[in-house]
Amino acid sequence: MASNRNLLVLPGDGIGPEVMNEVRKIIAWMGKKRAVGFDITEDLVGGAALDKHGVPLSDDAMKTALEADAVLFGSVGGPKWDTADFSKKPERGLLRLRKEMDLFANLRPAKVFDALVDASSLKPEIVKGLDIMIIRELTSGVYFGEPRGRHVNAAGEVEAFDTQRYTAPEIRRVCAVAFELARKRKNKVLSSEKANVMHTGVLWREEATKLHKEKYSDVKLDHMYADALAMQLLRAPKEFDVIVTDNLFGDILSDEASMLTGSLGLLPSASLGAPDATGRRKALYEPIHGSAPDIAGKGLANPIAQTLSYAMMLRYSFDLGKEADLVETAVENVLKAGYRTGDLLVGKTDGVKKVGTQEMGDAIVKELDRLS
Amino acid sequence: MASNRNLLVLPGDGIGPEVMNEVRKIIAWMGKKRAVGFDITEDLVGGAALDKHGVPLSDDAMKTALEADAVLFGSVGGPKWDTADFSKKPERGLLRLRKEMDLFANLRPAKVFDALVDASSLKPEIVKGLDIMIIRELTSGVYFGEPRGRHVNAAGEVEAFDTQRYTAPEIRRVCAVAFELARKRKNKVLSSEKANVMHTGVLWREEATKLHKEKYSDVKLDHMYADALAMQLLRAPKEFDVIVTDNLFGDILSDEASMLTGSLGLLPSASLGAPDATGRRKALYEPIHGSAPDIAGKGLANPIAQTLSYAMMLRYSFDLGKEADLVETAVENVLKAGYRTGDLLVGKTDGVKKVGTQEMGDAIVKELDRLS
Ligand SMILES: [Mg+2]
Ligand SMILES: [Mg+2]
Repeated sequence: MASNRNLLVLPGDGIGPEVMNEVRKIIAWMGKKRAVGFDITEDLVGGAALDKHGVPLSDDAMKTALEADAVLFGSVGGPKWDTADFSKKPERGLLRLRKEMDLFANLRPAKVFDALVDASSLKPEIVKGLDIMIIRELTSGVYFGEPRGRHVNAAGEVEAFDTQRYTAPEIRRVCAVAFELARKRKNKVLSSEKANVMHTGVLWREEATKLHKEKYSDVKLDHMYADALAMQLLRAPKEFDVIVTDNLFGDILSDEASMLTGSLGLLPSASLGAPDATGRRKALYEPIHGSAPDIAGKGLANPIAQTLSYAMMLRYSFDLGKEADLVETAVENVLKAGYRTGDLLVGKTDGVKKVGTQEMGDAIVKELDRLS
Repeated sequence: MASNRNLLVLPGDGIGPEVMNEVRKIIAWMGKKRAVGFDITEDLVGGAALDKHGVPLSDDAMKTALEADAVLFGSVGGPKWDTADFSKKPERGLLRLRKEMDLFANLRPAKVFDALVDASSLKPEIVKGLDIMIIRELTSGVYFGEPRGRHVNAAGEVEAFDTQRYTAPEIRRVCAVAFELARKRKNKVLSSEKANVMHTGVLWREEATKLHKEKYSDVKLDHMYADALAMQLLRAPKEFDVIVTDNLFGDILSDEASMLTGSLGLLPSASLGAPDATGRRKALYEPIHGSAPDIAGKGLANPIAQTLSYAMMLRYSFDLGKEADLVETAVENVLKAGYRTGDLLVGKTDGVKKVGTQEMGDAIVKELDRLS
């Protein structure tokens, strides 16, 4: 089907290709039943690219990614490539994509499906209905700032150093993503830093406040220190909607928030760049789980996180909110009906149907049929 | 009673003086019944010192602290001093103590008492019996490293920066505290950093590993990235015993661990310096809760965190482990018997006796009598 939607699919390594196969079924369903088509290019990334091209992402694939409207990414890595040189590690393929596409806003939803509320280590009343979105700045901060390295200092001691560095525009652009997202959700943003002890935190708070006043005063904005937020995410996570924070704090807090759900195999993510002249942002969508080489090729992997990554793509890259809702509802209903891949078999198992990767994908497509 | 134990008591502001009064009853009991005496000096800190001396800690009090074997600290701050200049804020009193005493190892226990297991937002089976100790490096890292500040960069943008900086000796001395503590506990240490993306993390892991090999190979040592640890603390916190990490990660992870218990009003802390010729470390003990000005002077404050801070002092500054156990057991039994200050009234309240600050202190002393 002809379309103006250029999609690059990069299944990657491990369970990536298997779970991507299930998403292809949903893509096909959307084309046939909802006239939502894509021009799809597929390429290699990670170990698969290394084996064929000697690099974890070819220049050709990089070029295609830069021209695509969205990239749907699987997962990379595995024991076969553990000994690869640093510059050739499978992960470098993903890092190259993030860097050259300038994907500065990492969206990490943490959502608890009613059917899986028992999977959380938190009490059901604390997490039932949880639906928060953490936005992590992804291309600056202490993981990238210069100078960084080690030397022998004046006292003759070995000393290592890293620099946390943020410019006002870097802070503003990621906060803008948060405010815009909040408008489509519960219209509130929590900005988090350590303005009490870090200069970057002071600037972060200032710029978030200024931008809010200038352009987003209809959204509710609050601020919280990152350590206090680490506590409040445990005590009362449902008080939050959109949270925006820097690369370092986002790294930790988004993982903490993920674990609130108890089921990492369900969680998608999006990484967005700056909007172009038409308002469309470069974007990459991927599950937060890894390539799980231990179960790869066995038909055991859970395709839901990859499926929900595709749903995020529909919503954020193509403004197909209804279709995204449809996919998310189908997943929710399939879980409610008791379908479970192995990773979800925790707690009560009565009324549960243990299924493999393909059966889970088929169940989702069947539910899409039933819903429409 | 004559003793070689010089103790500086700094009750501070807000509820500090009230909860310290209850600890004085226990100190008196220990002197009378167990011949554990102290030479006690008392002084002002925080807003109280500001009111009297115009500074949040007088030079005299600082001198006394440097000469004392231990400092028992209450809490500082309140609305009365919120408008004080930065250099005169009540918190500066505590920061001066930490800095001049060079208290580089912050010990933050997170312990769940059986009687209060329901206070946690986590499921009882996840946190029942939890007893972990997080050791946070307190005097270096990104909150202190130079250069720090802001400027306009070459592109004309406002840019803020902070420097995370660690020397090998700074890492080794705090890891040594962790290994030594582990030997008195379950003999295992988890060291946490982000060696995958930070140069300071790489040095941290190297030095922890070297020190372990040189002097502490009888202790089990593991490493975990700080973001993974933020997850595992939620999933299976009881797998950990002693955790050692840097100032920034420790700030966040120790607060997350505290909240696992659900009752911050119970949690003590210790901050230790380098050992002197006799092996004794400079040390300050304080509850993790603040001065709670909203309930100050009303007899509502919970004296348990201050009491357990005193117990930590017995254990770590004076090697009085049996006496520390006695105090901790008395607290545990009083909670088991249903005594609750207002902050602990969560969840089920049948069989519970609501008490004020003094009744709680008296109940602990009475239980000490019963136990001995
Ligand atoms: Mg992370
Ligand atoms: Mg903290």
